[in-house]
Amino acid sequence: MAQYAKPLANLIRELSRLPGIGGKSAQRLAFHILSMDDREAEMLANSILRAKSAMKYCSVCGNLTDKDPCGICSDPNRDRRTICVVEQAKDVAAMERMKEYNGLYHVLHGAISPMDGVGPEDINLKQLILRLQQDDVREVILATNPTIEGEATAMYTARLIKPSGIRVTRIAHGIPVGGDLEYTDEVTLSKAMEGRRDL
Amino acid sequence: MAQYAKPLANLIRELSRLPGIGGKSAQRLAFHILSMDDREAEMLANSILRAKSAMKYCSVCGNLTDKDPCGICSDPNRDRRTICVVEQAKDVAAMERMKEYNGLYHVLHGAISPMDGVGPEDINLKQLILRLQQDDVREVILATNPTIEGEATAMYTARLIKPSGIRVTRIAHGIPVGGDLEYTDEVTLSKAMEGRRDL
Repeated sequence: MAQYAKPLANLIRELSRLPGIGGKSAQRLAFHILSMDDREAEMLANSILRAKSAMKYCSVCGNLTDKDPCGICSDPNRDRRTICVVEQAKDVAAMERMKEYNGLYHVLHGAISPMDGVGPEDINLKQLILRLQQDDVREVILATNPTIEGEATAMYTARLIKPSGIRVTRIAHGIPVGGDLEYTDEVTLSKAMEGRRDL
Repeated sequence: MAQYAKPLANLIRELSRLPGIGGKSAQRLAFHILSMDDREAEMLANSILRAKSAMKYCSVCGNLTDKDPCGICSDPNRDRRTICVVEQAKDVAAMERMKEYNGLYHVLHGAISPMDGVGPEDINLKQLILRLQQDDVREVILATNPTIEGEATAMYTARLIKPSGIRVTRIAHGIPVGGDLEYTDEVTLSKAMEGRRDL
């Protein structure tokens, strides 16, 4: 990128650090940004700064929020007896898009991964146990990802909670709706068979 | 996006305005930005603002630059007798990546498009004619895009320059290197036939 002037090269470099934005996309985005109105570009830059300064993690559930506790934790219409445990704040957003779940959440901000040196004490687990002790929770739904780390985290969390007598469930893994048996990998297929239900 | 807090929703909206960034990508980028260090996010936002304020169009050729005239126009090693005419500043970047062209450029900032109400006076053509009158230019290479608008612009520009006796050429259109005859559209194929050369 030696041919670009420095401010442009900088912009391209910063953009290409974003996930899913390669060198070519970063160039295209940079040229687009330079062709925008000054006001539009300012709005984009300010939305980054403002989101960064305004968005915090909810002290109760760990979800991203601009007020504490977050809108879900402070919503009186939510079922406070169910907590859905997810790895990241974006998983809360995914669950909320479904518009069917009416309980609370708990964001772990990670998953147990001994390979990466992430142990149970490095994720937001202690706070979950605290919530279970303080509040009248009937069910904990483990919705960590179906990866090795997510499974390990679910297993560990389940074993931690079980003695308290609270019901612990794991979301189902299987063939996605609209998916094709032929193109489903063996692990998913095995999970789908394992999780089969009577009709 | 009703479930997102306002600063996050704003960020997602601003990001989704960028070309090639749909709603889902914008969400993913927004969550990534919120997970970045404060310093990193500031660098991203500032690179946008700085590029916007520092980058201007070269008063000679219309290329994007942080100094006027631009690095290409002021480079004494460039062949000043050849001007390559392109539609956008990003086309200059594409040509420069080729590392074979050593002449100057002229950026039109658009193409003639009667359908969109863009006439010859709406693009940076007058300045090109001025350059041809002032400088000793031997060849003008028309490298506008092979679209209806690009072709119309090339035709119009060629007719404008021809009377001055300056050589006017058009870059070749044909099957891209590595392309497949079978998957080449008819217009490109017809251009490739038309532009065939003796071996």
